[in-house]
Formats: sequence, C-alpha cells, structure tokens
Amino acid sequence: MEAGTENMDDTPTVMAPLVLLSKSNPVFGCYMFWTSLLVLKMLLMSLLTARQRMKTKTFANPEDLRINRSPEVRFGDPSVERVRRAHRNDLENVLPFVLMSLVYVASGPHPLTARLLIRIGASARLLHTLVYAIIPVPQPARALAFFTTFGITCFEAGYVFVCCLRFI
Amino acid sequence: MEAGTENMDDTPTVMAPLVLLSKSNPVFGCYMFWTSLLVLKMLLMSLLTARQRMKTKTFANPEDLRINRSPEVRFGDPSVERVRRAHRNDLENVLPFVLMSLVYVASGPHPLTARLLIRIGASARLLHTLVYAIIPVPQPARALAFFTTFGITCFEAGYVFVCCLRFI
Amino acid sequence: MEAGTENMDDTPTVMAPLVLLSKSNPVFGCYMFWTSLLVLKMLLMSLLTARQRMKTKTFANPEDLRINRSPEVRFGDPSVERVRRAHRNDLENVLPFVLMSLVYVASGPHPLTARLLIRIGASARLLHTLVYAIIPVPQPARALAFFTTFGITCFEAGYVFVCCLRFI
Repeated sequence: MEAGTENMDDTPTVMAPLVLLSKSNPVFGCYMFWTSLLVLKMLLMSLLTARQRMKTKTFANPEDLRINRSPEVRFGDPSVERVRRAHRNDLENVLPFVLMSLVYVASGPHPLTARLLIRIGASARLLHTLVYAIIPVPQPARALAFFTTFGITCFEAGYVFVCCLRFI
Repeated sequence: MEAGTENMDDTPTVMAPLVLLSKSNPVFGCYMFWTSLLVLKMLLMSLLTARQRMKTKTFANPEDLRINRSPEVRFGDPSVERVRRAHRNDLENVLPFVLMSLVYVASGPHPLTARLLIRIGASARLLHTLVYAIIPVPQPARALAFFTTFGITCFEAGYVFVCCLRFI
Repeated sequence: MEAGTENMDDTPTVMAPLVLLSKSNPVFGCYMFWTSLLVLKMLLMSLLTARQRMKTKTFANPEDLRINRSPEVRFGDPSVERVRRAHRNDLENVLPFVLMSLVYVASGPHPLTARLLIRIGASARLLHTLVYAIIPVPQPARALAFFTTFGITCFEAGYVFVCCLRFI
C-alpha cells in the first residue's frame, strides 16, 4: 500500500496521464507481473495437452503418428478433451481479462482497488486451471474460480464503459 | 468531432507521441469505450452457453452432472454448439480486432478515420453475435457483419504494416 | 542496429519510461510491424477455413446451406478440421505471444535482444502456419516452429516476472 502511495506522490500530477502504461506506475507493474504469470499458465496448458496426447496415443494429425509410433489418428479421448476444454476456457476468459485489465489500468483507476482486482482475478484463474485440468474436484470449486475472474472482468469493463462514455 | 479536435489542439505538438495511449487522446478514449463493450459481449457468450447447456442438459464434465441433476455427460447438442461456434468466432475475430486497434491507435492515425473504424468495427461484431447466437437469421446477414470487422482489421494491419516498415 | 541505438541516444534518460509504448521507441515500432503481420496471418486462417468448407461442402449452420447449395449440415471433414486446428493453435499461441511481447516491450528490455526475439518469434509462427495448414510436411517441422515461439514467449514472461517481482 505504502509503496504505491509513495510512487504516486513522486509523480507530478500534470504528468499522471502520461505514465499510466509504464513501469513508473505501480498498478501497471502489478498488471505486468500477473500477466506474465497468466501467460506462463496458458502456455503450460499446451504441454499438458501434449502429455495427455502421448499418454493416450491420441494424435489428430497423420504426420504426428510416425514420430510417436501410433497406428492411426484418434479424436475425443476424455482426458485429452478435458485439458482442451480447460485451455479453451482460458482463451475465452484469460485473454479478455488481460486485455480488459490493460485498458482498465490505462483509464487511471484507484491504485489500491486496481491492484487488488488484478491480483484476485489472476489468482482465481490459476486456481481454475488447478481444479479443472490438474486435479478435477467436485463443483462448485470450478464455478467459484470461474465467476471470480468473470465478475472482475465485468466490473473493469463497466468502469471503463462509464468513464469513457463521452468518447462514444 | 469538435471535442476530438479540441483535445488534440490542447496537446503541444512535441508531446504528441507520448499521449497516444492515454485518455488525453480522444481516439484512445473511443478505443477504450468500444473495447469495454466488446469484452462485455464476449463474456455474455459464456452465460449464453451455460443457459443452453442447462436447457438441454448437455454437460461435458462428470463433476457438473450432480449439481445439475443430469444422468451422463453429453456432447454435440446443436443449440449448445451454435453458441460455442459464435463464441469461437469471437475469439478468432474480436481479440485480433481489439489488439490490432490498440496498435493502430498507437501508430497515430488520423483521429476521425480511426474513431470511425473503431466504432463501425465494434458495432458490426455486436450485430454478428445478434444474428448468429441470439436470433439466427438467413445469410448474408452474418457474412456482412463478419466481413465488416474483418475488412477493418485488415485495413488497420495494413496501415501499421506500411507505417512501421522501416522497423522491420 | 544503428537506427535503434541512435534513437535511444536522442531520448533523454529521464523520459525513457514514458516513450516505451510509442513509435519513438524502435522496439515498439518493430513490435507493431510484426503484430500487424501476425494479425493478417490469423485473419487469413478464416479465409482458408471458408475455402475448405466450400470445397468440401462442409457447413456447420443450417442458414449457410442455401447460399452454398449444400443439402445438409456436416461436421468433421479432415481438411476443414486441419485448418481449424491450425487456427485454434494460433489463438493459443499467437495471442499470448502478442500480448506478452507488448508487456515485455513495456518493461524496457535491451533493444537488440527484444527486437531479435520479436522477429524470430513472429517469423516462426508464419512458418508454423505454412507447414501445418498450407503444405503439411512431416514432423518435426511443425514442432520446431511451435517451440521456437513457445520458448520466446516463456522467456519474455520470465523476464517480466523477475523484473516486476516487487509489484506482486
């Protein structure tokens, strides 16, 4: 908290709008940190899919068969499809969250609120992957993780919507 | 129009490149507004999918069955798949449009052109969802909405391509 | 190389953080150029899918049948599915690469390294599409192209992770 307030005080008020998307803005620093984590997590999904494909010998392309000593292309293996659904869910939710948070940070929100939302939203997605693709647990674990980030992205979009209404 | 021109005049010429990605640039304000709308629309697709899944009792994960009192996992219900195709189409087109427009705004295009392109491109995607997932209407309604945003994204990419060719 | 160094020298040190996301930063210019190419490539995938759908008369929506004089909806045609898998692979890898590179550029990396990574990462994805969806060639061509961009995105994420750790 204090670090944030300090940095904001160092910056002269007249320059504030200019530095929102730079490391001198601690909110953007926080955004950068959590974005890097979320991107790493999304890339991990590709490796998880590859692992499941090799384990179950489910390859979708003829050219992948030889290197993996698999007789024919296969589709629809349940454990491969689970990871793919989790991955697609990431595309549908993590990418909008990351993009929306960027625009939200650029709209100059209250620093403490913004950093809290980014931290919670990103952590919830890490948890979502854990309970969906790594250790499947009964609902509502996944639903709770899902709707946390979902709600935060909605809030950020609503905030930017109201604050940029005059630019329509 | 006048609001935009005014804001541009307030900004001293020497600082112009610095403020392109901040609210003091009305083009970026316009971009922020429409991005927030598009993100809200994309999130709505998740809710539409969930509604169709509940209506048709089509759940893809075993852990979702109990809470929804459904006997077994099911795939391929036509009304669920329609919303999912519309959602995937959004991932394939809205996300590139939003990213490309951000870079386009950062390249310092003519303010009136840029705002017009952003407004039309985003509106066409709202319309696309309406005629694809909410009220399916005969072609070419969906194709027209699709190619409007598609063409605008191409134009923005071409503009940035030419204007940044020296940085190759 | 020299253009980059020159530009960096022109910029007074005190302003450096402000101009990272503007055309006055040659690294961002390079990012803009390659992003425009990658977006054009992603849009091309939609056209490739449409071409395969028309060639094989595989339409997923009832409203598309009449205009294409096709008797019924069809799914799962191998050549359509190949392009769709390549397109989905783009969503899973190009979008994170583009987003991560933006944040990486904003973190102020060494200009030469950054531009090299952006050029190689983007070129590898162009190659990936070529060997996946246009001219299918035996592995490991596709795997090599895939892991080049994959590794670069990981490196960028790791760099930003370390450099923004204090903003956690």
